[in-house]
Formats: sequence, structure tokens, C-alpha cells
Amino acid sequence: MEREDALKLVKEQLTEHRYQHTLGVMETAIDLAKRYGADVKKAEIAAIFHDYAKFRPKEEMRKIIIEQGFPKDLLEFNAELWHAPAGAFLVETEAGITDREILEAIRYHTSGRPSMSLLEKVIYLADYIEPGRHFPGVDEVRQLAKENLDEALIKSIQNSIAFLLKKNQTIYPETFHTYNDLVKNRRID
Amino acid sequence: MEREDALKLVKEQLTEHRYQHTLGVMETAIDLAKRYGADVKKAEIAAIFHDYAKFRPKEEMRKIIIEQGFPKDLLEFNAELWHAPAGAFLVETEAGITDREILEAIRYHTSGRPSMSLLEKVIYLADYIEPGRHFPGVDEVRQLAKENLDEALIKSIQNSIAFLLKKNQTIYPETFHTYNDLVKNRRID
Repeated sequence: MEREDALKLVKEQLTEHRYQHTLGVMETAIDLAKRYGADVKKAEIAAIFHDYAKFRPKEEMRKIIIEQGFPKDLLEFNAELWHAPAGAFLVETEAGITDREILEAIRYHTSGRPSMSLLEKVIYLADYIEPGRHFPGVDEVRQLAKENLDEALIKSIQNSIAFLLKKNQTIYPETFHTYNDLVKNRRID
Repeated sequence: MEREDALKLVKEQLTEHRYQHTLGVMETAIDLAKRYGADVKKAEIAAIFHDYAKFRPKEEMRKIIIEQGFPKDLLEFNAELWHAPAGAFLVETEAGITDREILEAIRYHTSGRPSMSLLEKVIYLADYIEPGRHFPGVDEVRQLAKENLDEALIKSIQNSIAFLLKKNQTIYPETFHTYNDLVKNRRID
């Protein structure tokens, strides 16, 4: 799919603010893909569509998670997680994207998962550091992203978990499995 | 078992420093048991024996975890976790303690687990706040322990996870599950 066609489809689904965020993720994902050798075209499309389901009604997302066999424990955790798997389903069925790598990068862009693919890492991180993001620690992760993809990812997940701990919120198990997986397999070159 | 007999058995297993820690855990566990209505005698015995296996060789603990069917994923995480399940086994087989509640309080005193019993919470927390403990945040947990057992537990686990995150260490999944379980079921009265 061409960029302009993809952007047109996504723009209808998002607020203007979220659309601007999406453009930031797209540019950042393309940069990261070039830097780390991921498929640049797939990174572009996955980034454009990553928040496709962001503003769907919760009940629709809940239904998709149940009917499509996504892990049901998602429903016990923060609803902010739901748009990622629901998005992967809707991007396939409504926008006609069938590439598994792209769909999985969308599916796991919020929770992460152990053994993430390069494309999944690129989208996860681009979502975290795109230029519109402003929160404590983001500049440190931006810097790390220029040096080592996994180290940047570890730091972003550490920040996210620490943030949830401080707010007394639950942490989706897949996220800390992702953290443990990255830490176990880290290589500082 | 009488306190003096239990202490005698444990003293042989520990360094003097760890024995003093054990006495602190014992006093604290008795206080917490009285405050929150746990069995005081069981709290005393569980506290005395909680670190029974602390100085056993790693290879012995590894063997116990495998042969006794404890979760093997323990072996992939910090060896500091091993003395708790290994201790539960050795306290039963060497010291003749057969009470399941006491043995489970020993088994889960380092990792925690979802749906901890009252006695398990008392031992976990006593181990964290006994008077010999000095580290950032312990006084806040001591204060909370006078008001609400679960809130004190949540704070202690938050501190532990945050500490491991800062050190770039893996976090045993059961500890995260314990945190999520406590947060989901919290009631601020």
C-alpha cells in the first residue's frame, strides 16, 4: 500500500492530535529501520496503522479480543492495551493489510512480547520516542536509540514499569516477560 | 517445637549476622501476627526457620528444586530466590516441621505468590522490615505495616521491583504476579 493511501485510511480513524503522533511514529520508525536494518517499507506501514483502533469503543475491542482468540487476560488489565491486538485484527479486515510481520508489530506495540522481531522493536520504540512525546526519561531513550536498539527498549520498558508502580497500577505480565527476556539476552557491544 | 529448640537448630545453619537478622524477623513476625490476627506460634516458628537454607551450596539447592518439583524457572533467575523453596524442603526433612502453613510461609518468603495467606504475608513483611534492615524506603514500609498489611506489602514489592529495574536485573515472574494480585484486590479502608 502506498503511504498516501494508508495515511488517508488512518486519518479517518484518529483525532488530529493522534494523527500527528502517527506521523511522528512513521518518521521515527523509518529512521530506526534504516539504522538497524529492518524493512523500511514494512516499518512505514506498521507505524501508520499502529494506532488504527485507538478510538474504537471498548466494547468493540473487548468483542474482538474474545472472538479472535487473543489472550483473555488482556481484559483484566488496563484497556489502553486493547487497541493493539484489536488494531491488528481491524487493519487486516478493514484495511486489507495481510503481511504477518506488519500485523504482529501492530499487535505487540503496547505490551511487547518475549523474542520480539526487529520490526516489532522498531515500532514499539518509535511509538515511545517520536518527536511529539514529552515525558521524563524520553530524551535518554532517544539517545540510546541511536546506539543500541535493545538498550533503548530495555530503558523504555523500565521507565514504563516504574511509572505504573508509582501509580499503583497493575502491570501486564507480557510486559515484564518482555523486560526479562531483553535483559537475559542483552549484549553490550 | 519450642522456641529455644528451634533457635538452636537454626543457629548452626547461619552466620552470626544472619542469626541476628532471624531474631529480628521473629520479633517482628510475632508483632505483626498479633496485630493482624495470624497464628502467633506459627509466625514464630516460620520466622525462625525462614532462612534455614540460606548458606547451603547452590548445587544442593538446585538439586532440591529439580528433584522436589519446585518450578524449574527459578533456576533461570537470581539464586537468591532458591533458599526459600529449598528451605521449606529442608525444614521439613531435617527439622521435622510438618505444618503446611509454616512450610509455605518459608517457601514464598522471597518471591511471594498470588493469594498469599495471612501467615505468608506476615513472614514476607517481617523479613523486609525487621529492625536490622537499613535501606531507602524501609521506614515508610514500617509505618505502613502498623496501619495496613496489604499496603505495606505492596510498597515493599514496589520497592523491590524498582530496585531490580535500576540494577538492570531480571525480575522473577511470581513477584510481578504477587504485585498485580495485591493491587487488584486492594481495599483502602
